[in-house]
Amino acid sequence: MEKSKKDQIYEAAARLFRDKGYQATSMRDLAKEVGLQASSLYNHFPSKADVLREICMNNAQRFLAGMHEVEAHEGSASEKISSLIRLHVQLSIEDVTSVTAFNDEWRHLEEPHLSAFLQLRKNYENRFQAIIVEGIAAGEFKPVNPLILSYTLFSAVRWLYDWYQPGKKITAKMLEDEILGILMEGVRK
Amino acid sequence: MEKSKKDQIYEAAARLFRDKGYQATSMRDLAKEVGLQASSLYNHFPSKADVLREICMNNAQRFLAGMHEVEAHEGSASEKISSLIRLHVQLSIEDVTSVTAFNDEWRHLEEPHLSAFLQLRKNYENRFQAIIVEGIAAGEFKPVNPLILSYTLFSAVRWLYDWYQPGKKITAKMLEDEILGILMEGVRK
Repeated sequence: MEKSKKDQIYEAAARLFRDKGYQATSMRDLAKEVGLQASSLYNHFPSKADVLREICMNNAQRFLAGMHEVEAHEGSASEKISSLIRLHVQLSIEDVTSVTAFNDEWRHLEEPHLSAFLQLRKNYENRFQAIIVEGIAAGEFKPVNPLILSYTLFSAVRWLYDWYQPGKKITAKMLEDEILGILMEGVRK
Repeated sequence: MEKSKKDQIYEAAARLFRDKGYQATSMRDLAKEVGLQASSLYNHFPSKADVLREICMNNAQRFLAGMHEVEAHEGSASEKISSLIRLHVQLSIEDVTSVTAFNDEWRHLEEPHLSAFLQLRKNYENRFQAIIVEGIAAGEFKPVNPLILSYTLFSAVRWLYDWYQPGKKITAKMLEDEILGILMEGVRK
């Protein structure tokens, strides 16, 4: 299925924000990138702040939907955390906008959207950490610090976005399995 | 020991590049941040490209010096990788400029410095991956993909820079030990 114009604008914006920085990216740059007249671009988004807000909010909702699905399934804490790591890997590979939203660019959101976004993110983090606590209590996980573990796991997949290109010798599935293995079982034999 | 003016400029620049983006940061912003007249700032650095170049090159040298030290010591691959993870954690916590250099801002280096920097980085990565290969061959590590493992390890500590504040309940040493435990031994009990 061909991507909608809106999705194309999203992705082009995410790439520009990464390469030039949010503040140095203009609506003119964005229009050029997606081959639109500036006037047509404004029909989709009144400002670049709106593009950023939609990227951040949509991605927050997407991660929360993934969390909701994981929580709804019966399963051990270990299975839940594994599903969530897979979710992070998949979104980093498949969708350039997810990383924009969750790494750096959200800093440039304007209020009240910044607070709303941070609240959604905090909600996601709390639920992630609650599963870790559950896993420790059940004796599935080592007694790690849930905050350190969750941030280390989130962070561990951040490079994918810069590096992964479909069609390389390493498939998305291999990548997912390898990273999951490293994080869940460790490196040492 | 009080930080030299140059170090203060470095760190202020790294923070501004992170918060505003490199391209949106001006020498005037930087002068203001460190409480200098623009003219005095120019005595230290002729341009912001020079600040970025020095940050990137110094940090590349620092990581390579760490690598050199690790390689010079007798020890198992496991000990070497552990020392290098500790190095990454320490530098992320202690020095805001290291993360600027290695995460995003190096993209803005100008040639020939961009190529020179990427070569130093590649050299570091190759040596890191060679230790992983050595560890797999020696039966110390699982048969992981060395490239995926190295990038996952580098990436896993990236959040520290945004989050860690000295004086929190979690000390730098605790953080180092926890992260090392997660990456080397995994999460699962």
